[in-house]
Amino acid sequence: MADPSENRRLFEVAGQDPEFRPSPYCWRTRMALAHKRMAFEPVPWRAVEKRRIARSGGGTVPVLVDGARWVRDSWQIAIYLDQTYPSNPLFAGVAGLSHARFLNSWADSFLHPLVFRAVIGEQYPLLSDLDKPAYLERTLKKFGHSVEEMGRDPEIAVSEVSRALEPASSALSLAPFLGGETPDYCDYVIFGTFQWARVASRQTFWEQDSILDRWFSNLLDGFEGRARAQPARSHWP
Amino acid sequence: MADPSENRRLFEVAGQDPEFRPSPYCWRTRMALAHKRMAFEPVPWRAVEKRRIARSGGGTVPVLVDGARWVRDSWQIAIYLDQTYPSNPLFAGVAGLSHARFLNSWADSFLHPLVFRAVIGEQYPLLSDLDKPAYLERTLKKFGHSVEEMGRDPEIAVSEVSRALEPASSALSLAPFLGGETPDYCDYVIFGTFQWARVASRQTFWEQDSILDRWFSNLLDGFEGRARAQPARSHWP
Repeated sequence: MADPSENRRLFEVAGQDPEFRPSPYCWRTRMALAHKRMAFEPVPWRAVEKRRIARSGGGTVPVLVDGARWVRDSWQIAIYLDQTYPSNPLFAGVAGLSHARFLNSWADSFLHPLVFRAVIGEQYPLLSDLDKPAYLERTLKKFGHSVEEMGRDPEIAVSEVSRALEPASSALSLAPFLGGETPDYCDYVIFGTFQWARVASRQTFWEQDSILDRWFSNLLDGFEGRARAQPARSHWP
Repeated sequence: MADPSENRRLFEVAGQDPEFRPSPYCWRTRMALAHKRMAFEPVPWRAVEKRRIARSGGGTVPVLVDGARWVRDSWQIAIYLDQTYPSNPLFAGVAGLSHARFLNSWADSFLHPLVFRAVIGEQYPLLSDLDKPAYLERTLKKFGHSVEEMGRDPEIAVSEVSRALEPASSALSLAPFLGGETPDYCDYVIFGTFQWARVASRQTFWEQDSILDRWFSNLLDGFEGRARAQPARSHWP
């Protein structure tokens, strides 16, 4: 199959430095595309640039532009990819899709607010100056607390995240990936969360060489180390 | 295959009334056996009767006695069933197993403590008088709070449970069951939780005719209404 990456672009949240890519949702899609062995051009994008992605029908990323098709939202993109390019499936049938949806929603609704508290203090300075005012406003609206308040007690949040990871640890004690011997979309969902945490903060959420640590390292190293190529927090100012 | 139910017994937690069967873990196994179309004799058991299940190697139920084999713990029983009787699988391959383990651990570690707070006030009076002293002690040890304290604010707990169900609701918006078109072990895990809640309390955790309500009703009615045959809380004194 012809697969010219110039015909496939992925709009991703970028920081003040255009190479800083913290979004967990964009990482889900990056990993899904890598899983599909599909080349693409990652395009840095700032939240103020709604007009650039208007053809996607919304104002948030990830947005995948695949030839003439615009697809927005990490979940919708994953569905689109499996429907359009059936090889290397992200989901194992309708049961696998349903299970992945459970995990996806668990991460969004439960895990991310905890991780946000753990990392936002270190993340905020790296956001694009263009996006900071709207970010402050959105945070206040979403959580009823300012960015400063949300980031006040990262250590407590870290321990809450660690406890919340018990189900993932438990599943990964059975097989190297949530997908079994090889990763599936469930892995990329939770990987996205901790790639965000790794890029945006110096916090650690598990012991070195624990089950989770080995799982995460394996995914950082997968696909020729593509995810590890994104520098960790210590690289950024 | 010969399947004489007299050769298969399931030890289950029973209350003062031997027909009162509140344990979510035992319900997981009941549903798993029904899914496998395997007959069995349910045996009421009280927590003080450790000696009766000593051959299982532990002191908790469910314990399945399958001919000469004793298997303890709902998760181990599910694994045993799929390995020993491959037809009507509970798990879809190694990925399905890993996903189910995630949900199983999520229910045990996160959902159950919330449900416990919501139902224990109504449940406690129905426990076996033989088991009550140890139950009080175990609760204090496990949560650092007495049964009375744990049951003090069921309404708050109910709203926390409702919020915690967002991932299940989200997954069930894609397909009638977590297993897709038909239930799998993920369904029985969460079903067990709410069968416990239904039998032990009058609380409701979702709107009538919501996605979760229809899913739960379908499972109550499945297998010739076997789960619905267990009376709800209002039946008990």
